Amino acid sequence: MSAKVAIFMGSISDKDTMQPCSDLLTKLGIPHVFTVSSAHRTPERTAKLVKELEDNGCEIFICAAGLAAHLAGAVAAKTIRPVLGVPICGSALGGMDALLATVQMPPGFPVGTVALDKVGAKNSAWMAAQILALHDEELAGKIREARQGFIDSVEQAAAELEG
Amino acid sequence: MSAKVAIFMGSISDKDTMQPCSDLLTKLGIPHVFTVSSAHRTPERTAKLVKELEDNGCEIFICAAGLAAHLAGAVAAKTIRPVLGVPICGSALGGMDALLATVQMPPGFPVGTVALDKVGAKNSAWMAAQILALHDEELAGKIREARQGFIDSVEQAAAELEG
Amino acid sequence: MSAKVAIFMGSISDKDTMQPCSDLLTKLGIPHVFTVSSAHRTPERTAKLVKELEDNGCEIFICAAGLAAHLAGAVAAKTIRPVLGVPICGSALGGMDALLATVQMPPGFPVGTVALDKVGAKNSAWMAAQILALHDEELAGKIREARQGFIDSVEQAAAELEG
Amino acid sequence: MSAKVAIFMGSISDKDTMQPCSDLLTKLGIPHVFTVSSAHRTPERTAKLVKELEDNGCEIFICAAGLAAHLAGAVAAKTIRPVLGVPICGSALGGMDALLATVQMPPGFPVGTVALDKVGAKNSAWMAAQILALHDEELAGKIREARQGFIDSVEQAAAELEG
Amino acid sequence: MSAKVAIFMGSISDKDTMQPCSDLLTKLGIPHVFTVSSAHRTPERTAKLVKELEDNGCEIFICAAGLAAHLAGAVAAKTIRPVLGVPICGSALGGMDALLATVQMPPGFPVGTVALDKVGAKNSAWMAAQILALHDEELAGKIREARQGFIDSVEQAAAELEG
Amino acid sequence: MSAKVAIFMGSISDKDTMQPCSDLLTKLGIPHVFTVSSAHRTPERTAKLVKELEDNGCEIFICAAGLAAHLAGAVAAKTIRPVLGVPICGSALGGMDALLATVQMPPGFPVGTVALDKVGAKNSAWMAAQILALHDEELAGKIREARQGFIDSVEQAAAELEG
Amino acid sequence: MSAKVAIFMGSISDKDTMQPCSDLLTKLGIPHVFTVSSAHRTPERTAKLVKELEDNGCEIFICAAGLAAHLAGAVAAKTIRPVLGVPICGSALGGMDALLATVQMPPGFPVGTVALDKVGAKNSAWMAAQILALHDEELAGKIREARQGFIDSVEQAAAELEG
Amino acid sequence: MSAKVAIFMGSISDKDTMQPCSDLLTKLGIPHVFTVSSAHRTPERTAKLVKELEDNGCEIFICAAGLAAHLAGAVAAKTIRPVLGVPICGSALGGMDALLATVQMPPGFPVGTVALDKVGAKNSAWMAAQILALHDEELAGKIREARQGFIDSVEQAAAELEG
Repeated sequence: MSAKVAIFMGSISDKDTMQPCSDLLTKLGIPHVFTVSSAHRTPERTAKLVKELEDNGCEIFICAAGLAAHLAGAVAAKTIRPVLGVPICGSALGGMDALLATVQMPPGFPVGTVALDKVGAKNSAWMAAQILALHDEELAGKIREARQGFIDSVEQAAAELEG
Repeated sequence: MSAKVAIFMGSISDKDTMQPCSDLLTKLGIPHVFTVSSAHRTPERTAKLVKELEDNGCEIFICAAGLAAHLAGAVAAKTIRPVLGVPICGSALGGMDALLATVQMPPGFPVGTVALDKVGAKNSAWMAAQILALHDEELAGKIREARQGFIDSVEQAAAELEG
Repeated sequence: MSAKVAIFMGSISDKDTMQPCSDLLTKLGIPHVFTVSSAHRTPERTAKLVKELEDNGCEIFICAAGLAAHLAGAVAAKTIRPVLGVPICGSALGGMDALLATVQMPPGFPVGTVALDKVGAKNSAWMAAQILALHDEELAGKIREARQGFIDSVEQAAAELEG
Repeated sequence: MSAKVAIFMGSISDKDTMQPCSDLLTKLGIPHVFTVSSAHRTPERTAKLVKELEDNGCEIFICAAGLAAHLAGAVAAKTIRPVLGVPICGSALGGMDALLATVQMPPGFPVGTVALDKVGAKNSAWMAAQILALHDEELAGKIREARQGFIDSVEQAAAELEG
Repeated sequence: MSAKVAIFMGSISDKDTMQPCSDLLTKLGIPHVFTVSSAHRTPERTAKLVKELEDNGCEIFICAAGLAAHLAGAVAAKTIRPVLGVPICGSALGGMDALLATVQMPPGFPVGTVALDKVGAKNSAWMAAQILALHDEELAGKIREARQGFIDSVEQAAAELEG
Repeated sequence: MSAKVAIFMGSISDKDTMQPCSDLLTKLGIPHVFTVSSAHRTPERTAKLVKELEDNGCEIFICAAGLAAHLAGAVAAKTIRPVLGVPICGSALGGMDALLATVQMPPGFPVGTVALDKVGAKNSAWMAAQILALHDEELAGKIREARQGFIDSVEQAAAELEG
Repeated sequence: MSAKVAIFMGSISDKDTMQPCSDLLTKLGIPHVFTVSSAHRTPERTAKLVKELEDNGCEIFICAAGLAAHLAGAVAAKTIRPVLGVPICGSALGGMDALLATVQMPPGFPVGTVALDKVGAKNSAWMAAQILALHDEELAGKIREARQGFIDSVEQAAAELEG
Repeated sequence: MSAKVAIFMGSISDKDTMQPCSDLLTKLGIPHVFTVSSAHRTPERTAKLVKELEDNGCEIFICAAGLAAHLAGAVAAKTIRPVLGVPICGSALGGMDALLATVQMPPGFPVGTVALDKVGAKNSAWMAAQILALHDEELAGKIREARQGFIDSVEQAAAELEG
């Protein structure tokens, strides 16, 4: 089945940070592409991939990058499909560079930015799932189930702590 | 027609900042609710509104708030529909408080954060439209048309400047 | 004896950071609950716990959370008992996210925010003790004694250093 | 009736910012002192006032200051009564200086820091009221009433906006 | 004579800020283009302009943008000519967003970033002139003359102040 | 010989950071006290030490502290002798808290703040030496000699690197 | 009488901000020079002035600058007399640029940095006076008198406020 | 062949960070000097080196420094050749000090600032190469080749990842 979601990383060095995003999409049964493409090193590849994926039914783009994180913005300029951004901490500045470079997009080219680093990796997958679940009741059920799981794990941790 | 998008502001004082969001949704023909509800002052109202709107087919929640901007997060905790956040500058800290309080959500409860203030107001509307356009080709056409309008306006500005 | 203070952590991963808070309350003889409850994962549990604890005489809520730290604010929206907040550093941003998300509460819903991380864990316990000591002279005596202990330890350190 | 709360400002130039704190305490019927005393210019006066007020039954100290805002910390060093801090924006740094100088107190000397500027002025009064209300059911009633008023004003604003 | 330098602004709203850049290039006798082109709204126009200008002998690209300022980076990805970046303050964040989005470019795609706003507008022109002056002794003479002018103006201001 | 300089640390945990300050004063032959005294834990001790040291001819106070670093300010309020401040990084905020709490003193109570941590430890000693050297030509000679040593070490490092 | 203190501003545009420094030195009877000299525009003039002033008995250098505020550091490299720095807010970054560029000097070349802008202007004068007063009892008397004036003004403001 | 580029480090401790700059220049066949010279410790050496190198045909100066990073600015004040700045993270502040002290230069004395630390080390070499390549077609070819290498490495990483 063709990919519904594409995960782009600006650099292969972001792989460990973004693996949880791919793993979560897999666990939720969402077909996806997990690849590397850079806004600066491979702008043509990025544009071409966006078009090909879009033509094949890809509905959401997740873009993870560090430093002057332009990848999500570059993708947002090439598609009207929703683009989600994951800022990666890649310098001594604590990820503030990637956060601001991802979220502060000009009017007309939104990037739905989620949290930094691994938390953001997971949340970009959840956000993509929530968008797809608008038209996929089975997926919505999985998300609701996961939320129940969050409740269970809090209650279990509380029980152990208090116990 | 029932609302597809709900715009929640944490305070009526955010109205001028968020009006462009409502105006843009109107221009794109997206039925929506534009209201005030606070994470702290009216948590029950917020939860009740989320449920009612969701039951009536609302698909996307846009939440705008300043300071320790918890509104988007509070809504995200109550629905699995996509939630978009607009941080509003409401203190001397330049909106950094609202930005971080909106974007840094924990795993499982993403808020797709867009830019600060009026730029974010517009981008939350665009993002909502892009999500809805996944299943609404007419709306997709309007977004593409608007993007062509952006191109035209840049070219016109360039012509005037160079002319 | 029923709890006078409740310590809520947004995640069990904050336990090591908050243990000194619980230890200090124990040392001061203040009955308390030390548990996990999340603003986003378990909002109902959080609201229910607040009500139950309050009904049983709990007077002060200490809430510790990282990232977009909404826990203290969510509790503050559900009670008029004093709420103290401990921002936890949980991302590359150095805890600035949790600090601003905790302290910048809107009018009517104050969170008495103390320092970040372990220093804040201790200070939230001291602050709770100081509030309870307004009506508990024995506890006030223990706090005064501890302050004398701080003086002694500075003087001893100075003596060793100079010695 | 003698003061239950003392409001200290580091400078008379903070008066407009802190007036809402005094006004709110007055409205809630809380007897209080509203004065100026500086950590640096008048350390003796500050220490003497703290002692006198404490001896006369003052239970809570609210300290507002800008720049390297030491006032709350200086008071916290002189009393075991709860101290609340209101950081004031007094330089081009947007109040970050006052916020960090107020909140990051060392172990044993907590300052319950609330939001910056006028929002903080109000919240320090609310926080003081919430502490006093632990042993004053009439005051608790007033706070609950005010919270209902917040709900009403949100609902009214929503009705007008939607209407 | 064909342009040696191109000034790109991300938005016509940056014109007042960047006018001093164009004026200074004019004063130094450096033929240049002063235009608008956006990384997101008109990526094709931007890429096409870069190529055309480069083919016609343009040697340096100055790119000014605010918010998630990607323009300089987008140009840097399309040319190996030197690219200079001018971050523009366009939000409540004081230009920190544009600064970090401009300067923190990944390896291989440098953007020589100068100061924010009007100071940066001027300095981008000076930097371009200094690069061109490596092979234009007349231009080098003008820069040296301007530096003497700076000295004269400081000395004159000092004389007036002391006088 | 009685102390010309006093080094106060807010906590014994700052000793490793401040040892280079004491070592440098020793190396320069400047009699000094190296002790611990806290603005909050031991305000009376701090005030008493300042007076005693001043009465015995101490001319300069160096104060090192982390977090809401009030020590230098507290000393500055008690003496008209020059006070130098060394901000210590003691939290996840990277020392920004201590820096702002030290440098942003109100009018009339300056703290001559030097760099963070060990660099500041050394520079506070150099600054003290430079002040004392205004009336101690032998000490001035030692400082000039040390500066020549800096030159020599740069030149040697350059020679080795280029060699 | 020859100047004991020199005030250098990096730009004549800093004059209004620094005038209170010169006025205060005048009021304290401290002969001083108030001039403009830039680290970058007039490095030779700056070096020459430092030498001349030092040869004529100038004991303290006060340097005020904005942006990448190098003036204090450049002077510190040319003299072993104490150098005080006043960071000036000269960009959208709120003076953080000038503060960090002034205070974070490397080992051996301290700049005693005081607060930003007008507060710093005054405090640099007070700091200079405190250094000179180490060997000028009359001046020490004036400073003590001024401190009494601060106390009086606080007490008067308190009396008016409470009255 | 005499140096076309000079790399100055403010301290030998920056060597590991800047080695990739020298290595890249070597790889690109660009004759260069790699040395240590400090704005503060050796201002005369710095000025003399700049002049000598310039007289011998050096066209570009790369300056790397941490803390209050004045080196690039000090060099920019002594030459009209292009100066590139590499901010080095040398304190707990995450390099923000060096970034702002390098980039925020006043009008007339631009420093083309690149990214922090090792990324900046490489980008300063690329930027120097791009400037030199304006008049060196062979070098331009090498840069284009390297860019093709970037593309190849992204595609290879993508191929491996997608497996």
